[in-house]
Amino acid sequence: MTDEQEKSTVEPIRVGVLGARGRMGAEVCRAVDAAADMDLVAMVDQGDWLFNAADAGAEVVVDFTTPDVVMDNLQWCIDQGISAVVGTTGFTEQRLDQVRGWLERKPGVGVVIAPNFGIGAVLMMQFAARAARHFESVEIIEQHHPRKLDAPSGTATHTARLVAAARAEAGLGPTPDATKDEVAGARGAEIDGVRVHAVRATGLVAHQEVLFGTLGETLTIRHDSYDRVSFMPGVLLAVRAVRTRPGLTLGLDALLD
Amino acid sequence: MTDEQEKSTVEPIRVGVLGARGRMGAEVCRAVDAAADMDLVAMVDQGDWLFNAADAGAEVVVDFTTPDVVMDNLQWCIDQGISAVVGTTGFTEQRLDQVRGWLERKPGVGVVIAPNFGIGAVLMMQFAARAARHFESVEIIEQHHPRKLDAPSGTATHTARLVAAARAEAGLGPTPDATKDEVAGARGAEIDGVRVHAVRATGLVAHQEVLFGTLGETLTIRHDSYDRVSFMPGVLLAVRAVRTRPGLTLGLDALLD
Amino acid sequence: MTDEQEKSTVEPIRVGVLGARGRMGAEVCRAVDAAADMDLVAMVDQGDWLFNAADAGAEVVVDFTTPDVVMDNLQWCIDQGISAVVGTTGFTEQRLDQVRGWLERKPGVGVVIAPNFGIGAVLMMQFAARAARHFESVEIIEQHHPRKLDAPSGTATHTARLVAAARAEAGLGPTPDATKDEVAGARGAEIDGVRVHAVRATGLVAHQEVLFGTLGETLTIRHDSYDRVSFMPGVLLAVRAVRTRPGLTLGLDALLD
Amino acid sequence: MTDEQEKSTVEPIRVGVLGARGRMGAEVCRAVDAAADMDLVAMVDQGDWLFNAADAGAEVVVDFTTPDVVMDNLQWCIDQGISAVVGTTGFTEQRLDQVRGWLERKPGVGVVIAPNFGIGAVLMMQFAARAARHFESVEIIEQHHPRKLDAPSGTATHTARLVAAARAEAGLGPTPDATKDEVAGARGAEIDGVRVHAVRATGLVAHQEVLFGTLGETLTIRHDSYDRVSFMPGVLLAVRAVRTRPGLTLGLDALLD
Repeated sequence: MTDEQEKSTVEPIRVGVLGARGRMGAEVCRAVDAAADMDLVAMVDQGDWLFNAADAGAEVVVDFTTPDVVMDNLQWCIDQGISAVVGTTGFTEQRLDQVRGWLERKPGVGVVIAPNFGIGAVLMMQFAARAARHFESVEIIEQHHPRKLDAPSGTATHTARLVAAARAEAGLGPTPDATKDEVAGARGAEIDGVRVHAVRATGLVAHQEVLFGTLGETLTIRHDSYDRVSFMPGVLLAVRAVRTRPGLTLGLDALLD
Repeated sequence: MTDEQEKSTVEPIRVGVLGARGRMGAEVCRAVDAAADMDLVAMVDQGDWLFNAADAGAEVVVDFTTPDVVMDNLQWCIDQGISAVVGTTGFTEQRLDQVRGWLERKPGVGVVIAPNFGIGAVLMMQFAARAARHFESVEIIEQHHPRKLDAPSGTATHTARLVAAARAEAGLGPTPDATKDEVAGARGAEIDGVRVHAVRATGLVAHQEVLFGTLGETLTIRHDSYDRVSFMPGVLLAVRAVRTRPGLTLGLDALLD
Repeated sequence: MTDEQEKSTVEPIRVGVLGARGRMGAEVCRAVDAAADMDLVAMVDQGDWLFNAADAGAEVVVDFTTPDVVMDNLQWCIDQGISAVVGTTGFTEQRLDQVRGWLERKPGVGVVIAPNFGIGAVLMMQFAARAARHFESVEIIEQHHPRKLDAPSGTATHTARLVAAARAEAGLGPTPDATKDEVAGARGAEIDGVRVHAVRATGLVAHQEVLFGTLGETLTIRHDSYDRVSFMPGVLLAVRAVRTRPGLTLGLDALLD
Repeated sequence: MTDEQEKSTVEPIRVGVLGARGRMGAEVCRAVDAAADMDLVAMVDQGDWLFNAADAGAEVVVDFTTPDVVMDNLQWCIDQGISAVVGTTGFTEQRLDQVRGWLERKPGVGVVIAPNFGIGAVLMMQFAARAARHFESVEIIEQHHPRKLDAPSGTATHTARLVAAARAEAGLGPTPDATKDEVAGARGAEIDGVRVHAVRATGLVAHQEVLFGTLGETLTIRHDSYDRVSFMPGVLLAVRAVRTRPGLTLGLDALLD
């Protein structure tokens, strides 16, 4: 069988993008367009007619819109039998239940909702949670550009909670620390008992290091992100997976296994 | 119930050490002695009577001896119904089969044989193998003291093979590399298609970094080892686990899950 | 004296940009425009009239053009009594002598020609040259995106030469290295006796680490560059300094002291 | 001239060690003994007769004793015309003036007193002070074993002060930081306006990173110390230099140029 024949037998996935003119949406359009196994069939934004996506035969819709329209979008997609990959924020437990309800009536449709499509960030958190139970000590150092408003970052806080939960489950007590004489703040913030340090400097983008230590050795998991384009491999991974995962999938974790 | 009562209900594990006067064995003796849940009941080395360990009621034996005596030690331990944790090298497939045969006749006995008891190194390799399928690029940089004879290190070579296998399984092709004009050696050694760089400098001990990259982001897994004491948490983990894992367990991986 | 009065007494530097529509030139225009102590008075590119810069009263000209026009530009600037900051490449010893000749006749005019306006990169090299004589071991690890054609990078090669020269001057012999058993390339390229390792991975931009080691300690100097905007602080530094440095200045080094 | 002849013309430096049985003193004895250009001629400790060092013809004395005896030792050395390298702590301005007074009467004698003989640490601080004026942002991250009592470390505090002074001299204002929403401590301790983060973990020894950032780039200076043997190259450097530097020299800085 020739390459051409093979190509012709695997149909590209027909993808529509909602929020196509937003920063993330535009990036998704470029990434889908560049992917050999996908066709970008619809680009929809405010003022456009949602049915365009259905008319164009979209099999998967990627939604990077806003919390006020995403629920309507999702209900419509599920009704149309179109699977969806969602990066829009603002999903409460209540909203998730509503999505689950819609999906029950359409057993063939899949929806992936993820707070973070960065594969590197998701793996960093997975590995940190796995390593946590084997090391006496752990600290988190996140580093970001100085325009950031919160310290520590949401990702660092989330990582600290995962690590703390894994330590608790493994029966580990507090990390050893003999500090007697501390200039206030030197030892960082405490999130569920895990110390988190937030560095801010011009020139940085978004970086995080999770440092584990035990007798005579340390293990460090570090993630460096330079660009929102870094979310695209995760979005494409979800687009490829969503049709074969009926129901609601939360987070990229399940797709990475 | 008071603490004292609780302590009295969990009996410490009775541990014997073979090769107790060697560098690793001596470290194991110290570590077992310091562990609250273990009793060091026998220290055996060349010229000592192996039966001391049985007489002292050892439930688990740790063997850091030499390839020429380890098989006799193991056969004796299994016969006595004593579980064993083995860091001695030189295990061929044939030797492992022989151990499996002895264990079949003693269904309650467990044996853990591991080439590397460093939890950090083992996790680094596990994580690297897991991450490998999700990143377009990967390279390994290992750094050691300048007295080391081989380059790259055994751990780096092993990691490269694990990573290459995971890439192949995921259908990933070669890593992108436009290098046209190379000073010989600049791009490192190639192990199963994975580039490995070996740094040697006074002041270094044993370090390894696995760098993964995809669009706009990198993920780095780094292990720093300063001391052979770093193997002790892995040895103690195996001592705690071996009695409840009948049969032969190869490597720490299974014990870390 | 109020802030406003103070501002009015320090006149902004009047700056013209040659090659204003090129990638670097455009960045320079933005940087000059944003600098509180500079006025962007002329943007000149192919097809534009060079005299515009003089007519607009430029005191300093920044030249990011091409080797075939830069000498004409420089001769004209010096004739006009305009100081120049030059990032264009292709300066041979012969060309530099010609510039020196022109400058002799205009004692008030300064010219700064620099191959690298990245302050971080220049300091990295300065510090590496200074540290080199105090450490038994040194290796260089550079990391770049996989579209790069040469390995190692020009900066890494230049750093290696500086380091080698400093070692020779201090009477240091070869770095210790007991490697007997090497997979070809593992120990990197050798540039004047200094080992250089070139890592290539998607997601990387331009990074370099110089690792020094002696008994029980290492010192690492690392530079990470994400964007050509990183050259702008160096360009602005040169613009501020050039009028008070008559004659020819080569490289940013002298301006950083 | 043969090697042997050459050797015979350069006389080894005759070195005595005071505090020879202390942890640092013992290390110094080993280092002097191993140095090809030095002879260890006297090892003196509590209860030993100080005149042994003079009788043995010591030209340089290394003092790692205690604050209560170091002044007597120094006065005696200077009187005897023996130069001294001092790592003992507790030198106030008053004590230093006293040493200067003794030295005035012995113009040929040199004394080097240094709080830190780690060449790597001293260079890290020098480089940090030099880089400080060229970067908008700077933060310090120090990492130590968890038995350390103070946070941040003395070296980190000292580095922060040097950096702050260099920034002030260069007219740099506060580092940019938009943080609005901080979990207490996340942004570290503030030492003269410089943020310092102290990480504590089992497995770490003594490490420090100074991170500088400006538009699109960062420069990182990192020091890793694994062992007190790391102070020996600095001690030997001072022994070699002290006889040709009459008077009092404070710190290693001057010897590194």
